[in-house]
Amino acid sequence: MAARRKSPKSDATKRAREPLSSLLRVPSGPVRMDQFDPRATPGYPGKGKQDAQRHVDALAPELSDLQERLYADGRSNPDSVAKVLVVLQGMDTSGKGGVIRHAIGLVDPQGVQLKAFKAPTAEELQHHYLWRIEQALPGRGMIGIFDRSHYEDVLVVRVDSLVPESVWSQRYDELNEFEAKLAANGTTIVKCMLNVSFDEQKRRLAERLADPTKYWKYNPGDLDSRSKWPAYMEAYEVLLERCNTEVAPWYVIPADRKWYRNWAVAELLREKLAGLDISWPAAEFDVSAEVGRLTAMP
Amino acid sequence: MAARRKSPKSDATKRAREPLSSLLRVPSGPVRMDQFDPRATPGYPGKGKQDAQRHVDALAPELSDLQERLYADGRSNPDSVAKVLVVLQGMDTSGKGGVIRHAIGLVDPQGVQLKAFKAPTAEELQHHYLWRIEQALPGRGMIGIFDRSHYEDVLVVRVDSLVPESVWSQRYDELNEFEAKLAANGTTIVKCMLNVSFDEQKRRLAERLADPTKYWKYNPGDLDSRSKWPAYMEAYEVLLERCNTEVAPWYVIPADRKWYRNWAVAELLREKLAGLDISWPAAEFDVSAEVGRLTAMP
Repeated sequence: MAARRKSPKSDATKRAREPLSSLLRVPSGPVRMDQFDPRATPGYPGKGKQDAQRHVDALAPELSDLQERLYADGRSNPDSVAKVLVVLQGMDTSGKGGVIRHAIGLVDPQGVQLKAFKAPTAEELQHHYLWRIEQALPGRGMIGIFDRSHYEDVLVVRVDSLVPESVWSQRYDELNEFEAKLAANGTTIVKCMLNVSFDEQKRRLAERLADPTKYWKYNPGDLDSRSKWPAYMEAYEVLLERCNTEVAPWYVIPADRKWYRNWAVAELLREKLAGLDISWPAAEFDVSAEVGRLTAMP
Repeated sequence: MAARRKSPKSDATKRAREPLSSLLRVPSGPVRMDQFDPRATPGYPGKGKQDAQRHVDALAPELSDLQERLYADGRSNPDSVAKVLVVLQGMDTSGKGGVIRHAIGLVDPQGVQLKAFKAPTAEELQHHYLWRIEQALPGRGMIGIFDRSHYEDVLVVRVDSLVPESVWSQRYDELNEFEAKLAANGTTIVKCMLNVSFDEQKRRLAERLADPTKYWKYNPGDLDSRSKWPAYMEAYEVLLERCNTEVAPWYVIPADRKWYRNWAVAELLREKLAGLDISWPAAEFDVSAEVGRLTAMP
């Protein structure tokens, strides 16, 4: 293997004492949402909003390099199995779209497979709830991003009783089994709950209603969900406790400060990719023979 | 319509005398590839490589704003039909991937639908050659990017005689009809031929063979195509002449200087989006009623 070379360490890594994946990991055991501060900025290496762009720019080259290794591995290493799945969950206005634009937008779009899950279609409803999820899974070398996910099937489905409790209550174990299988097949799973506070959500919804360039982001249904906030928080507490496995851990990302939220998801992704320690794939052809052919050509 | 607001003009626009879409448009009539200089930098508002990043950064905010309008329109305007299709064609190493990373990567990945066309699969070969193209077309509000396209069916297919001449020779008219239908359905089509020179291709292939982090981008088949360069140029000349319609024009992008190539595709896309003159969609709900509901909530 001529192509092994370790990835460079970014400034951000050197400065942070503890990896973000430890700082933001949901501890095992019973979860209460009020144990997480939506305005906190754990692990952030700078001062605050004023230097956030600089810190995102600082990690971007390494993130981009690591993503390219993953992609190259998927394309040219016949034994490759590695792929990444980032699950984004959160209440309305928590910033799933903002994270995709500002954090995921840092890497080559060719290596990203995005899927936004809406209310299931008539066709999707005729299948098992994981059917549409399976179809959207990232292939090798790819980073899959789920904007909402299979967790809606224990969130809105539970809160609005879309199926009987006897059905949704069995899904937690089923989700763990499903994710364990993905992990065994080479998928690095990163589940992020974007944690916006009740008050900040109100401010953001009011902003959307005050700005005609943001009307399109607003949906009257958002207020219906807001009115069920406690039931949603309870549903999150249960899934954060029951589906927080070693192979598919949950991270709660403080999301009241957009600059922190975006930096944190980018840094978490960088850490996860670095952890894969992927080498550039070896040549699948005879390098010197090809050099000879090329040199002999006009 | 409360939401009408014109998009801001970028510095780049003010400085350029003539739009890039005029400067790079293939003139009608017979085409010879040697009429295009792969090292030219038409319309570039700066000095050269040293300020290229600054000029890309300068157009990025407007490009991003325009893309968001298109996306919002597709999501929230019930009468919306607008979508954009960017076709990228070019010889190996011309930089289709580089353009996607550096130019298309400037906009929100949520609004981009990428499709790379490889040699057709067994299933694809059982269908009409436009079948797989139809399936990858962008939906409303989206920017579709084709990395290679239906033009392969008059490029490699013609050069390698994969179907008889009587078949491929009829495709030029068929492609024009196909694209005319897309345009009539609201698709803005932007076809870019990334024009790398024969000599620059040799340098880039040699670079890939000299750098283990680039082996994965190299394929021995690249040299087979290189050995047929004149036949490919002839095939390009024919399609650039015969499929250069008002609703689906061809642009030849000088591609020997990567910084110019990336800037040019970003600027061309900005011009095309600005030309759509899309307003923010009106609210599909009663704004003051929603403000009332929100205010009444805790």
